[in-house]
Amino acid sequence: VDDRLNIRLDLAYVGTRYHGWQVQPGKVTVQGILQDLLSEAYKQRIVLHGSGRTDAGTHARGQVANFHAPARLPVERLPLILNSRLPEDIRVLAARVAPAGFHARKSARGKIYLYRVYTGRVISPFRAPVYHHRPRGLDLDAVARAMRLLEGKHDFTSFCAHAAGEKNRVRTLRVCRMTRRGHQLHFRLEADGFLHHMVRNIVGTLLEVGDGNRPAESIPALLAARDRRLAGPTAPARGLTLLRVLY
Amino acid sequence: VDDRLNIRLDLAYVGTRYHGWQVQPGKVTVQGILQDLLSEAYKQRIVLHGSGRTDAGTHARGQVANFHAPARLPVERLPLILNSRLPEDIRVLAARVAPAGFHARKSARGKIYLYRVYTGRVISPFRAPVYHHRPRGLDLDAVARAMRLLEGKHDFTSFCAHAAGEKNRVRTLRVCRMTRRGHQLHFRLEADGFLHHMVRNIVGTLLEVGDGNRPAESIPALLAARDRRLAGPTAPARGLTLLRVLY
Repeated sequence: VDDRLNIRLDLAYVGTRYHGWQVQPGKVTVQGILQDLLSEAYKQRIVLHGSGRTDAGTHARGQVANFHAPARLPVERLPLILNSRLPEDIRVLAARVAPAGFHARKSARGKIYLYRVYTGRVISPFRAPVYHHRPRGLDLDAVARAMRLLEGKHDFTSFCAHAAGEKNRVRTLRVCRMTRRGHQLHFRLEADGFLHHMVRNIVGTLLEVGDGNRPAESIPALLAARDRRLAGPTAPARGLTLLRVLY
Repeated sequence: VDDRLNIRLDLAYVGTRYHGWQVQPGKVTVQGILQDLLSEAYKQRIVLHGSGRTDAGTHARGQVANFHAPARLPVERLPLILNSRLPEDIRVLAARVAPAGFHARKSARGKIYLYRVYTGRVISPFRAPVYHHRPRGLDLDAVARAMRLLEGKHDFTSFCAHAAGEKNRVRTLRVCRMTRRGHQLHFRLEADGFLHHMVRNIVGTLLEVGDGNRPAESIPALLAARDRRLAGPTAPARGLTLLRVLY
């Protein structure tokens, strides 16, 4: 019988300085830093399961992770214990005991991402770390039309990184919307799951639509082609933030 | 006859990495970086006059500076020229030709500062660089009463750094207000001028009032005493942002 607790962490991080979420040899990653601190706190090797990877340079406001550990430390004190040792750009927002069967990745029913673009000539230095700066006007009506055509259940192979190993590339993009405030464009995407680079490839393609280099109405054919080479470039990581994991 | 142009720059910077505005030997400062780039661009030594110093670690959304230079470069292209070489945490927002008599410091008729405090238990890593994190409740009614007593024309010696050389320490604090959104407290101060550390010393004192360690009603006596030792501590630099210089 495993009498260890299953502990859920809710996390936020500014991804700028990190090689993404997942542990990689010789690289500074968010998972790596947290696992090391937890292992030290519990005096045993702790394995932390994230809801999924985030790319190098990508941010999170609501990453979720879980790990199993003995009831050695009061769970409600974990945020304080970890935050006092974490770098300032990673924060444990909350810690709680989860049901035994909870798994941050396998239990997830969906995710919400935000992608931010700034189209003004000069970007504020306070915004620069979390925006893709692209000082050009866009045909936002065309972008909105393309976004509506992406919503729904589709095979998203055309927006999936070449190297990705997923076999089933059908996902339901429940929400694909943009809001605008002045030169700030906020793309919000919610799906039951995302393929590798899917948000960044969708945004890269939408920006081509906004530039007039690709008709919005070509989206259905692009989806049907299931060919990554036909979609637009991968938009920069810094514009992307994982907002929330849905369970 | 001086046929050089008088050029005004509007600047924003995240102060975290800098030893403040003013050039200091052996330190990385915002003025130093800008002066070096301007001198390179104009192929002659350029002296940049700021509206005033900002402390190490303090930010600016609307710092103003001016310099004299020959009409060698098109002024409207200066933001692009400088921003392409500046670190991402310093931006030239605008450049324009100013009247011959304009001086960023001497012509200033006032300034507006923002000081931000976060009172929740865990601060978002996205907010941390520009907030003073102080996870305690405050008596905000008492703080508001103290702020009203600070508004107006007073000798602010009690809130002026010991070392400061200013002889006339009478200033008119036109606005001293706080707004609150959840755990975020925003103190906004506008005056015809500020003494060295004045905003940070006022906020440090207001936080003591909010803690219940100093009655709001003691402010008039504190002003009258003209003694820095009687006021509260200097609040941390990271919470402070120069919003605007008024001309």
